[in-house]
Amino acid sequence: MKMVDVGGKEKTERVAVATARLRMQPATLERILQGQVEKGDVLAAARLAGVMAAKRTPDVIPLCHPIALSGVEVVPTPVEDGLEFRVTVRTVDRTGVEMEALTAACAAALTVYDMCKSVDRGMVLERVQLDHKAGGRSGTWDRGEGS
Amino acid sequence: MKMVDVGGKEKTERVAVATARLRMQPATLERILQGQVEKGDVLAAARLAGVMAAKRTPDVIPLCHPIALSGVEVVPTPVEDGLEFRVTVRTVDRTGVEMEALTAACAAALTVYDMCKSVDRGMVLERVQLDHKAGGRSGTWDRGEGS
Amino acid sequence: MKMVDVGGKEKTERVAVATARLRMQPATLERILQGQVEKGDVLAAARLAGVMAAKRTPDVIPLCHPIALSGVEVVPTPVEDGLEFRVTVRTVDRTGVEMEALTAACAAALTVYDMCKSVDRGMVLERVQLDHKAGGRSGTWDRGEGS
Amino acid sequence: MKMVDVGGKEKTERVAVATARLRMQPATLERILQGQVEKGDVLAAARLAGVMAAKRTPDVIPLCHPIALSGVEVVPTPVEDGLEFRVTVRTVDRTGVEMEALTAACAAALTVYDMCKSVDRGMVLERVQLDHKAGGRSGTWDRGEGS
Amino acid sequence: MKMVDVGGKEKTERVAVATARLRMQPATLERILQGQVEKGDVLAAARLAGVMAAKRTPDVIPLCHPIALSGVEVVPTPVEDGLEFRVTVRTVDRTGVEMEALTAACAAALTVYDMCKSVDRGMVLERVQLDHKAGGRSGTWDRGEGS
Amino acid sequence: MKMVDVGGKEKTERVAVATARLRMQPATLERILQGQVEKGDVLAAARLAGVMAAKRTPDVIPLCHPIALSGVEVVPTPVEDGLEFRVTVRTVDRTGVEMEALTAACAAALTVYDMCKSVDRGMVLERVQLDHKAGGRSGTWDRGEGS
Repeated sequence: MKMVDVGGKEKTERVAVATARLRMQPATLERILQGQVEKGDVLAAARLAGVMAAKRTPDVIPLCHPIALSGVEVVPTPVEDGLEFRVTVRTVDRTGVEMEALTAACAAALTVYDMCKSVDRGMVLERVQLDHKAGGRSGTWDRGEGS
Repeated sequence: MKMVDVGGKEKTERVAVATARLRMQPATLERILQGQVEKGDVLAAARLAGVMAAKRTPDVIPLCHPIALSGVEVVPTPVEDGLEFRVTVRTVDRTGVEMEALTAACAAALTVYDMCKSVDRGMVLERVQLDHKAGGRSGTWDRGEGS
Repeated sequence: MKMVDVGGKEKTERVAVATARLRMQPATLERILQGQVEKGDVLAAARLAGVMAAKRTPDVIPLCHPIALSGVEVVPTPVEDGLEFRVTVRTVDRTGVEMEALTAACAAALTVYDMCKSVDRGMVLERVQLDHKAGGRSGTWDRGEGS
Repeated sequence: MKMVDVGGKEKTERVAVATARLRMQPATLERILQGQVEKGDVLAAARLAGVMAAKRTPDVIPLCHPIALSGVEVVPTPVEDGLEFRVTVRTVDRTGVEMEALTAACAAALTVYDMCKSVDRGMVLERVQLDHKAGGRSGTWDRGEGS
Repeated sequence: MKMVDVGGKEKTERVAVATARLRMQPATLERILQGQVEKGDVLAAARLAGVMAAKRTPDVIPLCHPIALSGVEVVPTPVEDGLEFRVTVRTVDRTGVEMEALTAACAAALTVYDMCKSVDRGMVLERVQLDHKAGGRSGTWDRGEGS
Repeated sequence: MKMVDVGGKEKTERVAVATARLRMQPATLERILQGQVEKGDVLAAARLAGVMAAKRTPDVIPLCHPIALSGVEVVPTPVEDGLEFRVTVRTVDRTGVEMEALTAACAAALTVYDMCKSVDRGMVLERVQLDHKAGGRSGTWDRGEGS
């Protein structure tokens, strides 16, 4: 187990997009969207938590390189049975930012869980996945439609 | 948005159990179970990452109270289409440990993703959920069979 | 230089209230209050940053004890020449939470600075001060009117 | 709310200078300067706390980029009614270091507060402000005399 | 690998004493003691670094419980061939503080290494060891003379 | 005390190798090597703890620059009276990685101590030292045979 040496790789622009879904009761989604959650603005907290978690990724994922993130955005969108979080992370560095995007997506969704759990403890975090990456030696990767 | 005051609650024994599944290609699971992943012992890393992430939860989930965890265990088990992580967190404190269990489950699974992503970038983290909690004013909660 | 031993003190309910003011141009305050800052909801970010910073206080203030905060609230209010942040921190522990309240007040105000600095780099953080503390051996303290 | 993408900016030498004042009773200042504070060398602690806080800035200010600081210096100076802290932070990166300088100034001053609060709880942190920045697309900025 | 459950243990007063020695060239020790190290007051920095590292122990030692430290003191003493660091950590909690004392001793000594390495890169950290512990189920332990 | 400005230095490939020895009872070493330690896979935990600690170095060593590590490896080897940890850290940056290598070596060894202390509290961490560094203005340095 080691943090593999990436010193020989070039610094290139890289991007990763990850998504996650938090499935919840319709009444919970309703409350969130109407700003009626007692603990406050859930979506603002989720966005911020996602950005901050992206920066903490090397502390949470043991073999992840500490890198300079150039941008992080977390966009929550209401979907049929809950919320989808779409996270985009960018860097100009020697290694990719897939782990940062996935970690941010989890943190954003769990922040919503935390703020709403007193009314809906059964929420489930589903389909945390990488959707797209580009840049670096392994090039572009896109999740296929059917996967 | 505030961290609600729990000073009036009593310190009681509390436990939370969360699970998560990482769906992967059969060949990836095979490699993990046979210890053939180039980056090292994936399951050992996942267990450790989960324990450490449980301790970092208040840094990652904005409104989560910093509490004294008395025990954390992460158990990975092979399932049909990947790995299941079952996390048990215990405390004797004024607030529950659901968020610690969920955060640990995500970190454990994402650590596996990180160590195997070069051979299976399409892995999906599924069904991160609370399965059981006990202790505290809101008492015991168990996820029903059909949920 | 040492972290003094508080093991002989009793655990009691303690509270600390700190305030800080961020002086800014009228147009900046206007933008914040009308939600027109390009970087997003400034007051939500400030509240959250304050809560999170309160939890990080022992990492930032070298001789501060790590304690279990039972509640943290950050309330921003528009005042004549900017924003006032009023932070209330509570614990049931062996030492007070003055440093947590002051640290949270600074972090909340600096978060506003960060999000608005591109339009008003001259903002000044003024009067970061303890206003009230209660609990513990040294008892209650209140800032006098004229100080 | 997002951490804006700075990937398109060039890495340039950047510097930021921030100052803060901690107003205190004359007897408190006297004690500090004569090394008679029971908790130890206050000014050494403040300098170190400032440097360490500069490194923690992206953990404390939510939308702040994690960047490689090339130098940090905290200089405390006695002034009429207390201490002034002058912080200089340097980097060669894609974004400025104003937030690092301001955060370090707050941490240095609050460290003094922490070490002396048992004898002077009424100390007030005043005028935390950016005094100078240079480098980057927005160029040089200096606080005017009268501001 | 798990963080073992200590929830069934009683909270008792506990103390741990650890020591470490940093062996160095006589000229290096001389410089430190006479305050001639270019980077500043080495012993003040070491004391502070030790205290702060004690608080970070659960982040650095994976299976270590996060506990409320009630006191930490780091005392550097000149010895024949360098410096000895004696660290005392106290808590009133369910588990001991041996790891906190050992971690603080290493951090204090390595801080001296860092500040003096440009003039004496060959310094060696020797004999980092637990000297005494008391409290808790396993009771008192003292290192024997000859060990 | 300041974090000296390295902004004028060039980014070059740098490497540092540090070693540490944990002296223990023969029975303890035996248990570790045969995987019979109750707390789990000690060597896997030590490797991971070392890598993670390398990344946390600027949080633990006050004047250490935050830099982008390109690789970290911790290799434990059984020796006559215990375990030796050999840590290699690499970067392409403006300052060296000696402190990261030394910090990782301590963390790896202390993790073993933590996991085995219930059966062998007398273990001693010996000879934590830099063995080799290369790159940067001060060039290559190797510890001589007799030191």
